[in-house]
Amino acid sequence: MRMYDIIVKKRDGGELTKEEIEFFVDGYTKGDIPDYQASALTMAIYFQGMTPEETATLTQAMVDSGETIDLSAIHGKKVDKHSTGGVGDKVTFIVGPLVASVGVPVAKMSGRGLGHTGGTLDKLESIKGLEIEMTKEKFIENVNTHKLAVAGQTGNLAPADKKLYALRDVTGTVDSLPLIAGSIMSKKLASGADSIVLDVKTGSGAFMKTLEDSENLAREMVNIGNNLGRNTVAVISDMNQPLGYEVGNANEIREAAEILQGKNVEDLRKLSLEIASHMAVLAEVFSSYEEAYSALEANIENGKAFQSLRTLIEAQGGDVSMIDDLDKLPQAKYDIEVKADKDGFVSEIDAESIGIAAMYLGAGRATKEDQINHGVGITLNKKIGDEVKAGEALVILHSDEEAAQASVDKVMEAYTISGERVEKPTLIHNIIK
Amino acid sequence: MRMYDIIVKKRDGGELTKEEIEFFVDGYTKGDIPDYQASALTMAIYFQGMTPEETATLTQAMVDSGETIDLSAIHGKKVDKHSTGGVGDKVTFIVGPLVASVGVPVAKMSGRGLGHTGGTLDKLESIKGLEIEMTKEKFIENVNTHKLAVAGQTGNLAPADKKLYALRDVTGTVDSLPLIAGSIMSKKLASGADSIVLDVKTGSGAFMKTLEDSENLAREMVNIGNNLGRNTVAVISDMNQPLGYEVGNANEIREAAEILQGKNVEDLRKLSLEIASHMAVLAEVFSSYEEAYSALEANIENGKAFQSLRTLIEAQGGDVSMIDDLDKLPQAKYDIEVKADKDGFVSEIDAESIGIAAMYLGAGRATKEDQINHGVGITLNKKIGDEVKAGEALVILHSDEEAAQASVDKVMEAYTISGERVEKPTLIHNIIK
Repeated sequence: MRMYDIIVKKRDGGELTKEEIEFFVDGYTKGDIPDYQASALTMAIYFQGMTPEETATLTQAMVDSGETIDLSAIHGKKVDKHSTGGVGDKVTFIVGPLVASVGVPVAKMSGRGLGHTGGTLDKLESIKGLEIEMTKEKFIENVNTHKLAVAGQTGNLAPADKKLYALRDVTGTVDSLPLIAGSIMSKKLASGADSIVLDVKTGSGAFMKTLEDSENLAREMVNIGNNLGRNTVAVISDMNQPLGYEVGNANEIREAAEILQGKNVEDLRKLSLEIASHMAVLAEVFSSYEEAYSALEANIENGKAFQSLRTLIEAQGGDVSMIDDLDKLPQAKYDIEVKADKDGFVSEIDAESIGIAAMYLGAGRATKEDQINHGVGITLNKKIGDEVKAGEALVILHSDEEAAQASVDKVMEAYTISGERVEKPTLIHNIIK
Repeated sequence: MRMYDIIVKKRDGGELTKEEIEFFVDGYTKGDIPDYQASALTMAIYFQGMTPEETATLTQAMVDSGETIDLSAIHGKKVDKHSTGGVGDKVTFIVGPLVASVGVPVAKMSGRGLGHTGGTLDKLESIKGLEIEMTKEKFIENVNTHKLAVAGQTGNLAPADKKLYALRDVTGTVDSLPLIAGSIMSKKLASGADSIVLDVKTGSGAFMKTLEDSENLAREMVNIGNNLGRNTVAVISDMNQPLGYEVGNANEIREAAEILQGKNVEDLRKLSLEIASHMAVLAEVFSSYEEAYSALEANIENGKAFQSLRTLIEAQGGDVSMIDDLDKLPQAKYDIEVKADKDGFVSEIDAESIGIAAMYLGAGRATKEDQINHGVGITLNKKIGDEVKAGEALVILHSDEEAAQASVDKVMEAYTISGERVEKPTLIHNIIK
């Protein structure tokens, strides 16, 4: 078998066989196939696409290129959840305790990475003492005992994907649906979950800007999961503005805790219940979505969901008093109001600009070496559709510097105020199974 | 400027600017741009194509990547001729002396390369003593004195093309018309000619199998030439069977000499006169094709064209007696007849199979280290349209081995004999200026 023939076959619109895809992934991971042939193939895939079978085979080959995490010692169906990424997305901190409270085992492995705010682990570390490093045995024991544990991702998962993604990133082939889908799913599948709920964001603040693209990506991923024996459901949710009101690290933990305590932050609560319901059904704890939804809502009202968060923190050595009294969470020195310059209705909030404003405050990492400042962040006072008067605060910046001009400017850029009344955006656009 | 942005622009169907193309060619030649980005770009070009302006700019940038040959000391308009390659193509040995005989200066630089038979230089070296290495001064002096000189190509011409072609060859992007055209033309332009006649082959034995593809390639090349200030004409000629009757080295020289002596090998004489006429017009020696054609035909009849070949050989130290008595040219030990196995009409002669049969005899090089055997080769007795009886010789193999079974088999594969009368193929399909 020759890589040259594989490139030409795909270039001419052919369907690659299992053997050809495995030959490529295996050879590329080992370094037998050079970057220049891999980049030619990925560009050919960009133009010619891949069939559902090809995409699933590629994903499995990338999973097989490295270690996989064996979660079989955990009782019950393990359900993982993945978001394609957005600003203010603290859904993981809500749905984890929520589904654990109804008996769904959640073995969450997360990373840090670069971004406007910290990753899941960074945000959790807003809580003093919370330890995310533990042995595999302890991790599994915690899930079996408490139904929930969060740990840093270890092991060499899907190295083929890492290598291929790095190449695609510099050769203009990131934007290929089958390759994006395969990349995301290979990491999820290597993490050992039985079923997966995907939160695919759509809108100006998402990787996929149009509903059509988001639905196509969701379909690709659901197809891969189902093809490879994992029940997969995708929720297409709106990212035309940040999710909830808080963007940062400690303040996102605060908002998540408040939701679990019963606070009604409309979009955030609704999306969390939606995702949690699908997770609970996939875990076979409930037989219908409606049943799951009611039980999960009930567990917010009766305090069990919040108790589940407390248990997680205690089990991992965190200071649970910071959750019982949310004012104990890290806080910035200064609160800076960014005020509307005219009357009207909020018609747009560019999520990415809000994210960048948060990063300027110190909430995120631009390079691996950057330190996260857990206390800084942004609280939105106004969201799309809200009426606003000139001089009223649109957001409050939580800053450790007295003047945070770059962030102020970025927030002003993010907000558009219209003279006419504006509808609130649809939150959940579609469910793809 | 970033290579990444250039790849994405072309991927999305954009037109690259002069600056972008020069940035790529210059950076790639120097090694600043890695192979994996160059292969992604060439695959994007494969799918999106290039405009005539982009193709011309790419070609000029490849010319500028290395040395160029300065022929300005040669009096008159220098006209070069290039064939896209075919089996039995000895037109260069005919048109060189032919146009020189009417006063067109021909400064021919050629290579050796790999192939079924030798390259131009190898074939010429069938003549004892003929020297193709000479100083640049001597080369120019010979052209000024005799209107014709042939030398080995020296200098680092179009190194960007060499590097890019080698990459395309292993990444499935050879078959891109603008890239093929740019590659051929960059070498021609670096060789310093004022005008160029292209012999673009079409048919089963050509790189371009269909007339449409051949015409498109011809148009691309003519466009490049004209865009870059060189008058360029392309002749689209048939390669559904070998050209003339001889395939090899010494026997091709023999057939070329015979044409110059007035022998009427129909397709070969006609194509040679056609190409020579365009060359003579481009050189501004004649003002019309018809005038040029008559004068060139006359110089065959009156012996001046053949004398021009003799002069070339004498000037370069070759044994001219081998041309005066063609039996003195190198000859193989054995003549092996390959006979028809049935009555009928020759309907197909796969030129590539005939070429491979010649290579098996030792006429060509499979690797750079191989030695050419000048005496071996193939004489076709029957061409398309000819009637044949079972047992009649289709070809004669000139072999240094008594049995040349692999070549015999390959020839049998090449010939198709039909029960019905077959038309001779059209020789000249189109002229593109």
